[in-house]
Amino acid sequence: MLHFQCDYTKGCHPAVLQRLIDTNMEDLPGYDVNCYTESAKEKIRKACNCPEAQIFFMVGGTQTNQNVISTMLAPYEGVVATNLGHVATHEAGAIEYSGHKVLEVPAHDGKVKAEDVKKLAATFYGDDNHSHMVYPGMVYVSHPTETGTLYTKAELEAIADVCHQYNMHLYLDGARLGYGLASPDSDLTIEDIARITDVFYIGGTKVGAICGEALVFTKNNMPDHFVTMVKQHGALLAKGRLLGVQFDALFTDDLYFKLGQNAMEKAQKMRAIFEEKGYEYHYNSPSNQQFFVLENSKMKELAEHVVFERWEVIDENHTAARFCTSWATTDEDLEALKAFL
Amino acid sequence: MLHFQCDYTKGCHPAVLQRLIDTNMEDLPGYDVNCYTESAKEKIRKACNCPEAQIFFMVGGTQTNQNVISTMLAPYEGVVATNLGHVATHEAGAIEYSGHKVLEVPAHDGKVKAEDVKKLAATFYGDDNHSHMVYPGMVYVSHPTETGTLYTKAELEAIADVCHQYNMHLYLDGARLGYGLASPDSDLTIEDIARITDVFYIGGTKVGAICGEALVFTKNNMPDHFVTMVKQHGALLAKGRLLGVQFDALFTDDLYFKLGQNAMEKAQKMRAIFEEKGYEYHYNSPSNQQFFVLENSKMKELAEHVVFERWEVIDENHTAARFCTSWATTDEDLEALKAFL
Amino acid sequence: MLHFQCDYTKGCHPAVLQRLIDTNMEDLPGYDVNCYTESAKEKIRKACNCPEAQIFFMVGGTQTNQNVISTMLAPYEGVVATNLGHVATHEAGAIEYSGHKVLEVPAHDGKVKAEDVKKLAATFYGDDNHSHMVYPGMVYVSHPTETGTLYTKAELEAIADVCHQYNMHLYLDGARLGYGLASPDSDLTIEDIARITDVFYIGGTKVGAICGEALVFTKNNMPDHFVTMVKQHGALLAKGRLLGVQFDALFTDDLYFKLGQNAMEKAQKMRAIFEEKGYEYHYNSPSNQQFFVLENSKMKELAEHVVFERWEVIDENHTAARFCTSWATTDEDLEALKAFL
Amino acid sequence: MLHFQCDYTKGCHPAVLQRLIDTNMEDLPGYDVNCYTESAKEKIRKACNCPEAQIFFMVGGTQTNQNVISTMLAPYEGVVATNLGHVATHEAGAIEYSGHKVLEVPAHDGKVKAEDVKKLAATFYGDDNHSHMVYPGMVYVSHPTETGTLYTKAELEAIADVCHQYNMHLYLDGARLGYGLASPDSDLTIEDIARITDVFYIGGTKVGAICGEALVFTKNNMPDHFVTMVKQHGALLAKGRLLGVQFDALFTDDLYFKLGQNAMEKAQKMRAIFEEKGYEYHYNSPSNQQFFVLENSKMKELAEHVVFERWEVIDENHTAARFCTSWATTDEDLEALKAFL
Repeated sequence: MLHFQCDYTKGCHPAVLQRLIDTNMEDLPGYDVNCYTESAKEKIRKACNCPEAQIFFMVGGTQTNQNVISTMLAPYEGVVATNLGHVATHEAGAIEYSGHKVLEVPAHDGKVKAEDVKKLAATFYGDDNHSHMVYPGMVYVSHPTETGTLYTKAELEAIADVCHQYNMHLYLDGARLGYGLASPDSDLTIEDIARITDVFYIGGTKVGAICGEALVFTKNNMPDHFVTMVKQHGALLAKGRLLGVQFDALFTDDLYFKLGQNAMEKAQKMRAIFEEKGYEYHYNSPSNQQFFVLENSKMKELAEHVVFERWEVIDENHTAARFCTSWATTDEDLEALKAFL
Repeated sequence: MLHFQCDYTKGCHPAVLQRLIDTNMEDLPGYDVNCYTESAKEKIRKACNCPEAQIFFMVGGTQTNQNVISTMLAPYEGVVATNLGHVATHEAGAIEYSGHKVLEVPAHDGKVKAEDVKKLAATFYGDDNHSHMVYPGMVYVSHPTETGTLYTKAELEAIADVCHQYNMHLYLDGARLGYGLASPDSDLTIEDIARITDVFYIGGTKVGAICGEALVFTKNNMPDHFVTMVKQHGALLAKGRLLGVQFDALFTDDLYFKLGQNAMEKAQKMRAIFEEKGYEYHYNSPSNQQFFVLENSKMKELAEHVVFERWEVIDENHTAARFCTSWATTDEDLEALKAFL
Repeated sequence: MLHFQCDYTKGCHPAVLQRLIDTNMEDLPGYDVNCYTESAKEKIRKACNCPEAQIFFMVGGTQTNQNVISTMLAPYEGVVATNLGHVATHEAGAIEYSGHKVLEVPAHDGKVKAEDVKKLAATFYGDDNHSHMVYPGMVYVSHPTETGTLYTKAELEAIADVCHQYNMHLYLDGARLGYGLASPDSDLTIEDIARITDVFYIGGTKVGAICGEALVFTKNNMPDHFVTMVKQHGALLAKGRLLGVQFDALFTDDLYFKLGQNAMEKAQKMRAIFEEKGYEYHYNSPSNQQFFVLENSKMKELAEHVVFERWEVIDENHTAARFCTSWATTDEDLEALKAFL
Repeated sequence: MLHFQCDYTKGCHPAVLQRLIDTNMEDLPGYDVNCYTESAKEKIRKACNCPEAQIFFMVGGTQTNQNVISTMLAPYEGVVATNLGHVATHEAGAIEYSGHKVLEVPAHDGKVKAEDVKKLAATFYGDDNHSHMVYPGMVYVSHPTETGTLYTKAELEAIADVCHQYNMHLYLDGARLGYGLASPDSDLTIEDIARITDVFYIGGTKVGAICGEALVFTKNNMPDHFVTMVKQHGALLAKGRLLGVQFDALFTDDLYFKLGQNAMEKAQKMRAIFEEKGYEYHYNSPSNQQFFVLENSKMKELAEHVVFERWEVIDENHTAARFCTSWATTDEDLEALKAFL
């Protein structure tokens, strides 16, 4: 069976695993601080060209989103996201569980538009009394987005400008950041992201780790007593080494970026294969998630050999499906896929 | 440096690590269900002699406590625990964060006393109107307790009787369960615990895993849509394999129980060493956490070679300190410790 | 100055006030139960032709919405409302504060459409795994709606059918119920509403009381320990007599319904006046909130004599404005208004 | 039947009622700001000799406690109270519902002791790592306390000193403040309380109002967007006039203080009567709540004519009972009571 349904079907990259093996019997202190978390933080600060970055490692994406959003917002504030945003739709209400509203704006090609945020925020600064409404306190963007699209540097800067004009934080969910950065269509580097956003996370779970996300506060703006609030959310890992060692490995010799490049090379090959076979795009994604239109009869046949994600019903005879590449995708996988298309 | 400060200074047991290595490149589905979680569940059901047990794997103890307690309680209910209970004191308010009060009863030798629970619960069933008070909906016990003590079968059954008389759940926090079960002073088996309690967790983080706890609902009483609520709490691991593989290894060939036995053998040797050297007990613990009284001058000297936990100031010249054994403690470690005492 | 900005600018109806005066020095028990709350409940049960109705009095609308929604939903559920719904936009996130998401559907003429709810709910019962999404557990409708429109009996029944097919509660916010019931365009009686919905509230604050809403559980479905949860929300009034006495007065001699009729007669006169003066409708509302288009120059002039609510900017020269009638509106008020138009 | 069970069995003082009658048909804006709230605030500022005080009116005590505590605390902080504190025991978990822990210290004669707070707070500033514990962020005192006792000026100042040394707020719950201020045993004035505390509330519900508490932020420290957070808690009254008018009346011609004096004169007479009849004190309370020991046979007999609160079982033949005086207690009430003793 071929696995293209998502980018987290395998464990971790062999180099990451090796570091876990090598360090396994060392005695290390519990929780968030040990020599590996500290080394990993230093490497990430360098990669981001952001010496003052404050970094915290968490186990997963929804957990990271919930912790960042709920600790950076004031109680009367909500977070702005598109109607497709992961926090808006696929986190089982984790943001609302923390007491905050997700203020939806329409997705344009999967993305938040600066103009929409400005329009929303501006009304809170005008003559009208909005004291019975939820104040926008943060903008959430995912990069790549839920439909695989990417923000340009100009787009992200425009959103940041609006955020800072209206006292909102800009938060970037980088669950698949490694893949976005490696896209040939991207003009954003990790340094740009560290400079433009207020806080973002570097996704490990989908990019080479068995679990783990590196949360980066870029403006010396980690909330006071953040570790206590993480503990309060049940999100403080007892053996923080598991996260520190992995990120230390991922940021050694540019491994994280190389894993992104592999996925993107494979994504481009996959696109060429589907194009060659005459399939149409459902979304035209520049990153590792690819969306194609399948005839239902073909879809059934293919499902006997390949696992992919049924994305959306298009009409009674067609369905859109998602195929993901990852750090682990090989040319052999793609050749095998090609044979079934 | 010798490490006796806690039972989670090392990674995972080599056999557990080996299973992670062996399965690393397999393609597995995300989240809570895969062949390893299913295999581990089956083995745990057998070990507990509880074929109907519903099992869920989580990353850590505070997370597990928060998820169990908040999903099993009605909104108007609180959880009863001793004033030393982990949920009462060392989880940064994780239970209150979920909206529930911890109703404290005094610790007797670290333990909840059935009589105290009965006294508390009975008032809610009498003539008085308690509608302005928090109803006791669950009793939380840890086994071993925070001071290393163990419930007898009779004590646990007495608490269970009161719980069921007053419609409360009995929940056992087994962060160190493996060590408690292996104590020569214990008359409780894992089957007993599954039979007596309504829900408990088998601690992995402190007993051979790099992370992970196996939550066991013993009475076909897992809350509806539990997985959605876990997701909502930010506690659903994307690569559930990490937990499934480890618990599958821990429950193969009784490894979990053997790890407990090692810690207990080493704890007894440690006790003999301290006794031989003339130290006094602070608490007389039958499990892997041992508490001794140190003269402050000795404590300083020892701290140059051994890491231990300062537990409590006794007087201006004496301090109580905690020394833990674990699955990883060796005779060599103890010999080295002896030389410094 | 004339006051048409809303329907809560005055205190309470003189007959309601008289009952407060008459009972003021009586000794009555605290909180929710006294002879007046019990008498008021009995009268409401009769008015609703719903002998099994369970009734609870609360101080205000947002408080009532928050208490009903958060106590009737399971933790993993959200409430469906239109994007204009009061709970979605004008309660400062009170629903999210209680941990639940508001699942928005588009407003059609201010109303929820049964088809939209069905489409949303049905996906949770199909093949797809929605365990990472918020389940719809309740539908919230306001009647009259935020734009003054009214559900027909057929529309409300269609929504109820979908709700019950998919195990959702149907909740009707009747902040202005008295006005809706008295509208000549309405085919819904209070008995119909009690029969069709699972829970609704009869608004007092906007219809003759100085404060207070009567929450009616129509299907013997008041959550267990509701009074304790109300207390927990800080919403249990110490002197419940204040609510009981007022509702007892409002449901004596059909006062509540007569107050509705006055507002509706005055609303129709107001419509005739605006029509006669050549104004256009912004929304064509059949209830006591009326929406007209004003030229900005006229709006400024009018604002010197009349208080009304600026609703929405239409274009650079025109603004929509809201004018409300109420139980207290007199023919003299309307004549005076006419003179300024 | 005579009513001594609590101090809230009647409506409001006639002068307060008269102001509600006089203003009933005036048109006033909704929510928290109108001419009467503003006038009442100004009078309270003067009474407190605190020109910068920020004042907000709320409906009830638990609501006020929940709103103050949850908006002034950081998410990682809890509130310190005695084990008898209203917030600790009789608010159905309203503080925990808002996500915060109540950190209990022992009650000494019903009161918080400065030394206990210091001991608790100091540990968070020492060498130990308390990052897994709930930080004390506020001290809650009630004055009079739940057992009728009163803080001396020196005691309150000592607590304030500790609070400010350790960055905690001092909050005083004045549900019965009027009675405490009028006690001949009290050396605290309302100006003292405004000066010493950071925030306190002046109880109206129990001292002459039909509902309402005046929350006073004394140090220009009202949380930003407080009105929005109050709305979010469901606690913003639509017709704020109800609270403004009442407090305006209560703070006209020292009515509030005179009501306190009446209750205290009657309490002293009541004490004399009970003493004369040979009853013993359960607590020796200097305020309007009086606690006596009754023989059970006498208690039964008395209960046929007098309503009082059974406080605590003392032994099989004796019960402690609470008898309250209030603004409404008359000499005739006491004579009648005397006849039954």
